[in-house]
Amino acid sequence: MSLNTFGHVFRVTTWGESHGPALGAVVDGCPPGVPLAEAEVQRWLDRRKPGQNRYVTQRREPDAVEILSGVFEGRTTGTPIQLMIRNADQRSKDYSEISGKFRPGHADIAYWRKYGLRDYRGGGRSSARETAARVAAGGVARAALAALAPGLSVRGYMVGIGPHGIDRARFDAAEIDRNPFWCPDATAAEDWAAYLDALRKSGDSAGALIEVRASGVPEGLGAPVYGKLDADLAAAMMSINAVKGVEIGEGMAAAALTGSDNADEIAMGADGRPAFGSNHAGGVLGGISTGQDLVVRFAVKPTSSILTPRRTITTSGEETEIVTKGRHDPCVGIRAVPVGEAMMACALLDHLLLDRAQTGGARGPLG
Amino acid sequence: MSLNTFGHVFRVTTWGESHGPALGAVVDGCPPGVPLAEAEVQRWLDRRKPGQNRYVTQRREPDAVEILSGVFEGRTTGTPIQLMIRNADQRSKDYSEISGKFRPGHADIAYWRKYGLRDYRGGGRSSARETAARVAAGGVARAALAALAPGLSVRGYMVGIGPHGIDRARFDAAEIDRNPFWCPDATAAEDWAAYLDALRKSGDSAGALIEVRASGVPEGLGAPVYGKLDADLAAAMMSINAVKGVEIGEGMAAAALTGSDNADEIAMGADGRPAFGSNHAGGVLGGISTGQDLVVRFAVKPTSSILTPRRTITTSGEETEIVTKGRHDPCVGIRAVPVGEAMMACALLDHLLLDRAQTGGARGPLG
Amino acid sequence: MSLNTFGHVFRVTTWGESHGPALGAVVDGCPPGVPLAEAEVQRWLDRRKPGQNRYVTQRREPDAVEILSGVFEGRTTGTPIQLMIRNADQRSKDYSEISGKFRPGHADIAYWRKYGLRDYRGGGRSSARETAARVAAGGVARAALAALAPGLSVRGYMVGIGPHGIDRARFDAAEIDRNPFWCPDATAAEDWAAYLDALRKSGDSAGALIEVRASGVPEGLGAPVYGKLDADLAAAMMSINAVKGVEIGEGMAAAALTGSDNADEIAMGADGRPAFGSNHAGGVLGGISTGQDLVVRFAVKPTSSILTPRRTITTSGEETEIVTKGRHDPCVGIRAVPVGEAMMACALLDHLLLDRAQTGGARGPLG
Amino acid sequence: MSLNTFGHVFRVTTWGESHGPALGAVVDGCPPGVPLAEAEVQRWLDRRKPGQNRYVTQRREPDAVEILSGVFEGRTTGTPIQLMIRNADQRSKDYSEISGKFRPGHADIAYWRKYGLRDYRGGGRSSARETAARVAAGGVARAALAALAPGLSVRGYMVGIGPHGIDRARFDAAEIDRNPFWCPDATAAEDWAAYLDALRKSGDSAGALIEVRASGVPEGLGAPVYGKLDADLAAAMMSINAVKGVEIGEGMAAAALTGSDNADEIAMGADGRPAFGSNHAGGVLGGISTGQDLVVRFAVKPTSSILTPRRTITTSGEETEIVTKGRHDPCVGIRAVPVGEAMMACALLDHLLLDRAQTGGARGPLG
Repeated sequence: MSLNTFGHVFRVTTWGESHGPALGAVVDGCPPGVPLAEAEVQRWLDRRKPGQNRYVTQRREPDAVEILSGVFEGRTTGTPIQLMIRNADQRSKDYSEISGKFRPGHADIAYWRKYGLRDYRGGGRSSARETAARVAAGGVARAALAALAPGLSVRGYMVGIGPHGIDRARFDAAEIDRNPFWCPDATAAEDWAAYLDALRKSGDSAGALIEVRASGVPEGLGAPVYGKLDADLAAAMMSINAVKGVEIGEGMAAAALTGSDNADEIAMGADGRPAFGSNHAGGVLGGISTGQDLVVRFAVKPTSSILTPRRTITTSGEETEIVTKGRHDPCVGIRAVPVGEAMMACALLDHLLLDRAQTGGARGPLG
Repeated sequence: MSLNTFGHVFRVTTWGESHGPALGAVVDGCPPGVPLAEAEVQRWLDRRKPGQNRYVTQRREPDAVEILSGVFEGRTTGTPIQLMIRNADQRSKDYSEISGKFRPGHADIAYWRKYGLRDYRGGGRSSARETAARVAAGGVARAALAALAPGLSVRGYMVGIGPHGIDRARFDAAEIDRNPFWCPDATAAEDWAAYLDALRKSGDSAGALIEVRASGVPEGLGAPVYGKLDADLAAAMMSINAVKGVEIGEGMAAAALTGSDNADEIAMGADGRPAFGSNHAGGVLGGISTGQDLVVRFAVKPTSSILTPRRTITTSGEETEIVTKGRHDPCVGIRAVPVGEAMMACALLDHLLLDRAQTGGARGPLG
Repeated sequence: MSLNTFGHVFRVTTWGESHGPALGAVVDGCPPGVPLAEAEVQRWLDRRKPGQNRYVTQRREPDAVEILSGVFEGRTTGTPIQLMIRNADQRSKDYSEISGKFRPGHADIAYWRKYGLRDYRGGGRSSARETAARVAAGGVARAALAALAPGLSVRGYMVGIGPHGIDRARFDAAEIDRNPFWCPDATAAEDWAAYLDALRKSGDSAGALIEVRASGVPEGLGAPVYGKLDADLAAAMMSINAVKGVEIGEGMAAAALTGSDNADEIAMGADGRPAFGSNHAGGVLGGISTGQDLVVRFAVKPTSSILTPRRTITTSGEETEIVTKGRHDPCVGIRAVPVGEAMMACALLDHLLLDRAQTGGARGPLG
Repeated sequence: MSLNTFGHVFRVTTWGESHGPALGAVVDGCPPGVPLAEAEVQRWLDRRKPGQNRYVTQRREPDAVEILSGVFEGRTTGTPIQLMIRNADQRSKDYSEISGKFRPGHADIAYWRKYGLRDYRGGGRSSARETAARVAAGGVARAALAALAPGLSVRGYMVGIGPHGIDRARFDAAEIDRNPFWCPDATAAEDWAAYLDALRKSGDSAGALIEVRASGVPEGLGAPVYGKLDADLAAAMMSINAVKGVEIGEGMAAAALTGSDNADEIAMGADGRPAFGSNHAGGVLGGISTGQDLVVRFAVKPTSSILTPRRTITTSGEETEIVTKGRHDPCVGIRAVPVGEAMMACALLDHLLLDRAQTGGARGPLG
């Protein structure tokens, strides 16, 4: 059972609420001897931090991580790593509006019905703040991957906001860090800025499409048939707040292809490993990585907290209206980019360790 | 760790290869006292059975299930239920073509590289035959749901084949069982027949889009943040052979919406439960069921076994070509419909039991 | 996989080292709505606290617990409960003796060989300080049990120190809290004091025998055949530092009995429930609780840190001698009493929730 | 959750009832490429087979195992291995006595109260026949251990029946297979025969004490603090039918020792590995194997099915008497010897794989 735990052998359990004293993750199963410092984890957290530009929430959180266990003299010891982030900006405010009414599109009503009570301050456990803990855990996973799979890299970026996509012909990886949207297409980033500015003024919000790509993935990660790498990635991404769809490789578009279009032909690469002529599969066959780029996309619904009044009910069952004020992301998808990266890193490390358990990491020969 | 197990407390472990003596599922955690007969499980297996029309594989398998344990005097006892299906049609044939070459789009190369050996007869463990065991387990889940959540129903159907979708205005549930495609739109079904006939003649194959809908779902199923109902459904569907994308509610299209469009407004229903004005969420908020219809879609890539020659390599690393002969489904997605239903039934029962553990099934009041 | 997690659905993950900044437990799967305050958890921690008398370590630790998540307005919310205990007495001392040599009987050499490095300060993760986190988690379990199984009580006590046992005829539950040994026999407690004083002076240590008894246990807890209540209790107790044996009911002595001696005859109780004529079984049949007192005993080996010189090797493989100075418990078993209680409470709540999942808590009728 | 599953990454799920059509185990997580034949598994099953001498049940069961999946051309493939054993001797008999009355000492009443129904034929799921499936799974574990840890051996034997123990000075491993009791002391074996013959004539039964010893165990197996090797072994042994106590090394007797007596001093062995002067610890420190012999003992209570009348109640709640006729083991502990071996083999393989996952199998240096 894994209510709040992700992973099979590299296990990440997150805890904490939006407005409690702290939140964090306990990471169990990390290999020993991995160099790990708070600054290294902090680096990834800083990418997700709120308040960095006008397109994300203006809540001010330093999101400073403390490593409370599992590291000794700069290296992991093989024991649980506790990552704690204090909640700094617990602005004392009036929660009477959201404590008694359910915000449409939010988890409020679902938590109330299931648990009979809920921490209504800023969404409590269902707040996207929980994903800070994921990003911290992802930092640990990245450190371990750097030691165990040196050539592997994980990179997320946005490929769409609202109805506006990118032009793949203009894809420039160097561009990703240069705009507030992690957008690899500089032209699209400008269009998005204009689109979001207009939306924000009207009190509305936009959805987003994010792609996470891992390169240098070892062959053989993933364990059929319910521990498939793509099945775990689907769960990982769908578990992120507001995600409504997940795709691997061709994704939903695969349904419209023919078998001859969709086949990834195989040749031998100069490095003695298989070389594929295309990557419709997105780097996974039968739930197992092929060594090609692992390509995952997910859709984030528009932020549910909007200034447009919406019909709802109170906890007493009376019909009413609600306007969700506050410091909300006009496009919550933007900050989901580092979260998607973190989930990818965690899943890859988890499967790398699983593969060591089952096969010892040996690979079947080609010739 | 769950290499071949699905579920938290209702746990389904499938086993078996395409051309071994048998395959099946052991189902652990089923509540005791549930009326269960082989005929009831067989009923669902028959819907998935090969050879029923010209659009699915002509392999002849009776797929007759035997219940070997866990049932006494017609009722489940609370002990593991072993469901075994003998492989009848183990046609003795020449495997030299696929034993030495990797079929593009299949798991062959991934299994070889990971395990260093593979059961090449008909795909072995990676064959879609494994899904027969899922459908049998789904039959057990349905029986338990009938006892524990009487109003709940699970229904799958196809909403697209290749580039051809359905017209939602013509949706007729009664039509689903009347055509070979589980298609709710009679006109579309005719178009699809023509499309598939042409494809089959040309030795090609088509992808498919499947929707599974559960109605009468109790509120409160699902456990944030990694045991979310939608995350488990995403994993469940993505674990089905050839699936490349999974959507809940609006799915990938949610990215293109604005917050005001996407909000599902809430009112009070005549039954004293919340009534939503729309269902963009697909029945899940914050990972927890809302009582609305649970709507999941998934895309199945076109069958990889096609008569068109494709470039590949041998297990010795030599470049060559392959043509995959045999009795293959021109659209493997068709038979994925009952599989998707089975996964939905298993996930719902699993979460219903989990919810009993955590909350005892009580729901927070409305008024 | 559960490297640092105990439990199936009520899951306790402990983290932290003896001399790190903090240690604690994240408790996942606790039912919502349970009244819970730090003071209530603290009450149990105070029973385990070091420095309370001359028979336990003189290390001064306030062991003050902070609840960082999962509780809102005095009640559990159903989300993970983070319990953190700061390590206050991190005395800066010279670790050169134990950093380079392995202490016989300690986990030092095993950690070194497995992990290639170890936090040598006070035992690191293998220190008995880890059990403070278990006691805190046990406090949460007790709070939930109080709500869900009102008549249930869990009580631990010592029944032997070194070669000295208790006289069951003098068993007086009221005595348990009146002496430093949690001993239910006042006369034995006096003997033990003299025995331990002499041992301590000679720089030696003693083992201990502990019994934990739960009364008012609901019938039907436990799930055959690997989720048996007694199997889980055996693992729970054996996982406590220095424990070398676990018994249920008659325990090891059952081997010497005949079937006619060992049978617990059954009659009907006045309350309409089965009434047993004896309790050789210790409250469990076939892995399932019978409603009788659940009786578990475990043996704690003598503290390995002693002042008597012992032969050992250095981390460089040189043979040498070691004397373990420091503030050690002359009988580490004493402080294991509240730990055993905590493990029993956690296991009982876990199985109570599991039973709700599988059976809904209904019991087969008797007439 | 693991109702009927044992292990973390090498997972054994057993299924089946005493008088159903079959029982077995599905083994998931076995490494690929391990040579495995039915005959090899059968060899271990034959050691547990009933009817081999007059001290075990006279039920005639060939206990022939069929491997239904997971093996191809004589080697494991890395997919689930289904081991099925048909129940041959389903003697049609009159169950009216035990269907309506609870047998004291058996799980009957516990199953009834928990599940509300039970398969009363021969004990159903709670029958010791379930352990045949464990022995088969143990055969798979042994085959994998032979490949991965060549010098490792696992050997079980009896060290006591009723009040009669062995003389360790007469311990002769070659003797174990020469008498019906797996007894390493030929003289004791003769005494036991006389004792059991007398007991059997009087319609009574005896308990037993079993020791399982593994030699050549790699250092570093076991994962603190809840995945400890000894904690898992305690659960494994306690989960065997009728077991009431488990000990590691000194076991319960450790409570009576002083720290100076109990210390296992450490030197350097000629092989460059640590050499211990004694083995009070039983091969485990801090939950991790030290490379010394792993020594586990467990106590089996006397067979509960005896010819002496005992007071009990009916399923309708009426008080009555019962005499359990049938073909029962006068000492069920005898056949528990191969079961204990099987559990040890499974636990060792499981932890060997877990250790590969976490550390890659590297060991910290000594010099």
